[in-house]
Amino acid sequence: MTIAILGGTGPQGQGLALRFARAGVPVVLGGRDGGRAAAIAEELMQKLPAGSAAITGLDNEGATDAAEEMVVLAVPFSAHNATLEALKSRLVGKILVDIVVPLKEGDPKKVDMPPEGSATEAAQAILGDEIPVVGALHNVSAVTLNNLDWDINCDILICGNSLPARKTVMDLVRKLDVTPYNAGDAEAARCIEAITPILIRQNISKQVPFSHAGIRIWAPDH
Amino acid sequence: MTIAILGGTGPQGQGLALRFARAGVPVVLGGRDGGRAAAIAEELMQKLPAGSAAITGLDNEGATDAAEEMVVLAVPFSAHNATLEALKSRLVGKILVDIVVPLKEGDPKKVDMPPEGSATEAAQAILGDEIPVVGALHNVSAVTLNNLDWDINCDILICGNSLPARKTVMDLVRKLDVTPYNAGDAEAARCIEAITPILIRQNISKQVPFSHAGIRIWAPDH
Repeated sequence: MTIAILGGTGPQGQGLALRFARAGVPVVLGGRDGGRAAAIAEELMQKLPAGSAAITGLDNEGATDAAEEMVVLAVPFSAHNATLEALKSRLVGKILVDIVVPLKEGDPKKVDMPPEGSATEAAQAILGDEIPVVGALHNVSAVTLNNLDWDINCDILICGNSLPARKTVMDLVRKLDVTPYNAGDAEAARCIEAITPILIRQNISKQVPFSHAGIRIWAPDH
Repeated sequence: MTIAILGGTGPQGQGLALRFARAGVPVVLGGRDGGRAAAIAEELMQKLPAGSAAITGLDNEGATDAAEEMVVLAVPFSAHNATLEALKSRLVGKILVDIVVPLKEGDPKKVDMPPEGSATEAAQAILGDEIPVVGALHNVSAVTLNNLDWDINCDILICGNSLPARKTVMDLVRKLDVTPYNAGDAEAARCIEAITPILIRQNISKQVPFSHAGIRIWAPDH
């Protein structure tokens, strides 16, 4: 079941493509320039071990059409709404997996949320209730994703208004050997997206030895 | 350096009082009924090992006056604003540590944020810029706090508009053998407070073996 990653030529998109392909999920990278997406896909294929699924590249429209069930949106927030407006009709019958964090222009230690409350809620407003939007994978460091020798260092909080869509995305995320947690409806994205700049703040800080912080849900053993 | 815990007769306030007193910090519990606060303080003292600092109880006004530097606000959100309005003049020269989460009436798996964005921001708006407000300790389970045999199972995210006040509260929190992280200004409380209902959702869920989930900031060792 092929997935598309739109904005897949950026560091987050490339890292996710590597991880999913290694886990056996065929990936079509989408980019504004399909030729560039195809070239990057070819580069990524060189990094994958034998037995991995294929990464290919197309323009965003072609990648969306090629996705069988799920389309991952990994563009910068500045392109978030326009990309969805342009692709809305092609997304019917699919799940939009929104990983975008509205980082503040000039200060990645803060969010600058859209009027809808979060990127995930903005996406749902644009796509309408017929196309389920699921927020996921916001808090994973691109550096970690792109280093295939490293385990992914965080749990994944999943939210969205459709519970079946949430469950489908949780199953996808489990393929990356991480634990997804159901965080409830799309409004939870106001929290989940905003965790990323708090992690970026720790990475930037000289007070802690981190460079790729993540979050974990933790409980005592009793 | 005595601290006050207002709403200290509730489960979160009692648990924090036990933990701080055991760590050597004298605590004055504040309650609407000072007599009841004193009685609960006496009960809590029975649970503490020798060498702990004292827990005493007063009404909220008296407890606020008794605090040397920091006043912890642990009332239900329904009493959050009124408590601050009533105590504002007594808080001058002190730091207000706001641990309140605006849980949604009837659904503790969601927040219902005030117009200011979060409880911490609402507190800062009420108290004015002269009295620093620091959001902290939102995500610690009361059950964990009240069981002194257990380690506290999460990291503590700290936010507020005054960096010196944040640092003072981080020093206080370290006494509980937990790691505080500087999460930035008060706006970060929109995220931090909203983590609590996501944790409550995991605790309620039968899908995970948790009863007192917390969050941890995590990074790989490389």
